Amino acid sequence: MRLPRQVTLVEMGPRDGLQNETHPLSVVDKVRLIERLAETGLQHIEAGSFVSPKWVPQMADSGDVLRQINRRDGVIYSALTPNMQGFEQAIAAGADQVAVFAAASETFSRKNINCSIDESLERFAPVIEAAKAKKVRVRGYVSTVVGCPYEGRIAPDAVAKVAGALYDLGCYEISLGDTIGIGTPLSVRSMLTAVSTRVPIEHLAVHFHDTYGQAIANIYAALEEGVSVVDSSVAGLGGCPYAPGAAGNVATEDVLYLLQGLGIRTDVDLKAMAKVGWAICDRLERSNRSKVGAALHAREHHSKA
Amino acid sequence: MRLPRQVTLVEMGPRDGLQNETHPLSVVDKVRLIERLAETGLQHIEAGSFVSPKWVPQMADSGDVLRQINRRDGVIYSALTPNMQGFEQAIAAGADQVAVFAAASETFSRKNINCSIDESLERFAPVIEAAKAKKVRVRGYVSTVVGCPYEGRIAPDAVAKVAGALYDLGCYEISLGDTIGIGTPLSVRSMLTAVSTRVPIEHLAVHFHDTYGQAIANIYAALEEGVSVVDSSVAGLGGCPYAPGAAGNVATEDVLYLLQGLGIRTDVDLKAMAKVGWAICDRLERSNRSKVGAALHAREHHSKA
Repeated sequence: MRLPRQVTLVEMGPRDGLQNETHPLSVVDKVRLIERLAETGLQHIEAGSFVSPKWVPQMADSGDVLRQINRRDGVIYSALTPNMQGFEQAIAAGADQVAVFAAASETFSRKNINCSIDESLERFAPVIEAAKAKKVRVRGYVSTVVGCPYEGRIAPDAVAKVAGALYDLGCYEISLGDTIGIGTPLSVRSMLTAVSTRVPIEHLAVHFHDTYGQAIANIYAALEEGVSVVDSSVAGLGGCPYAPGAAGNVATEDVLYLLQGLGIRTDVDLKAMAKVGWAICDRLERSNRSKVGAALHAREHHSKA
Repeated sequence: MRLPRQVTLVEMGPRDGLQNETHPLSVVDKVRLIERLAETGLQHIEAGSFVSPKWVPQMADSGDVLRQINRRDGVIYSALTPNMQGFEQAIAAGADQVAVFAAASETFSRKNINCSIDESLERFAPVIEAAKAKKVRVRGYVSTVVGCPYEGRIAPDAVAKVAGALYDLGCYEISLGDTIGIGTPLSVRSMLTAVSTRVPIEHLAVHFHDTYGQAIANIYAALEEGVSVVDSSVAGLGGCPYAPGAAGNVATEDVLYLLQGLGIRTDVDLKAMAKVGWAICDRLERSNRSKVGAALHAREHHSKA
């Protein structure tokens, strides 16, 4: 068993989280959320998305959000940019980093971004070139890395191919997304073994959804494989468009609790993170999908009673 | 990595689950729950408890429940029996197996069962002797095996001592309970390493609560250590008396999903188990604490819409 000594958390709440919440949030509330997240010690927050507002109306105000944040030194505020237009908007709004997203499943690619995997890579090439010219780092997402809502199981080699292509194009880090949360430690290990033949493990991140309650176990397996970057979402913000009502992104608080228990350093304050989770759940009038968040809240409430 | 080829699930819903639910359930409903659980393929169901009804009023009708079950061949219906009186009631009601329960924390023992650890072991000795005379097998529970709500961290050696004592007294299996769900894979592995010096690993079971969302990862770590018996509760029935509102027992459906993904045989039908979970949640008017249960329900509902 080899575990990393330090892990970087990439916070997905303000982007992947909020874009899957039904309750709309104002620019002011989004800015407040991102600022409070930065105060916990996080080093990387995905702050918005410059996808067409026709597709993702919840992210139409990402430019305003990025412009209005009181920035904290040492924190990366990144944004999703599917094409040149999005890239230019993100940079104009002050994004420190951008991200492109491809799928490991051909059908998912066509249904989700209206083009084949190869076409998506061609579309990203000029974005990555433009980013290089501006010395902006580009993160690459690969979705459906274990399974696809249309095709079922996805072969690890198919994931390795797309991840390798994004890395070769110039992405500094590839975030591997189990979009529908169907993985277990065995399928996650097989996938990582295949992908790490194309992309060095230190350039891989895991982005796991907790749809079937396996995300923490899968992250533990990924850590044992040497992964040291983990995507998560405060209070488990978000959901699963393919199973409405089911869980989405793994909760940041629960990941932090795991990492603390394993003696892995993150520089993020768990108690502060739990408080951010309580506040955003109140604002969104939803229950807290972080078990750690719920337990700390219950204990605090209980001890006061 | 060594994983067992087969795992036995011990279903806690009707006992540890229901005794921590606020909504009362009639004898008829308890009997129906146990019968439906047996139909999923489970081989061991803890059906009730013969503790003083003054302590656990929810279990006062365990005798009636055990008498009224339509029994299924090959299924063990067991009951918790803290003393000779409880043992005799359980056997008279038809329990196939009984269980005694000690704590690894001295303070927890005194607060939970009003005696020291040594006194509890002395009290169990005649129960175990009487059970031997009747050829009834006795399971031993050890609670607070990672941490205690009063003492904090519990030393692995303290757990090994109590588990070893119960095994030496004649318990055929020792179920190790993380009562407040604070473990992570590292503390769980340390604890199992210590305990397995006193009790062979094939006689150990894990009984994990999901208070901090770590139970599935902890079970995965325990499987890697060679544990092949897992306690769980359909729909995550139950809760945490030390953090009211927080999660309790790990959900059987989520454990089954993990085991299936790891290629481990259980002979239990996941879909049937999920349906039992939906039905009991409806009856108790509570949300489903199994993420697998919620996801399968959402998918079924979604595809019909």
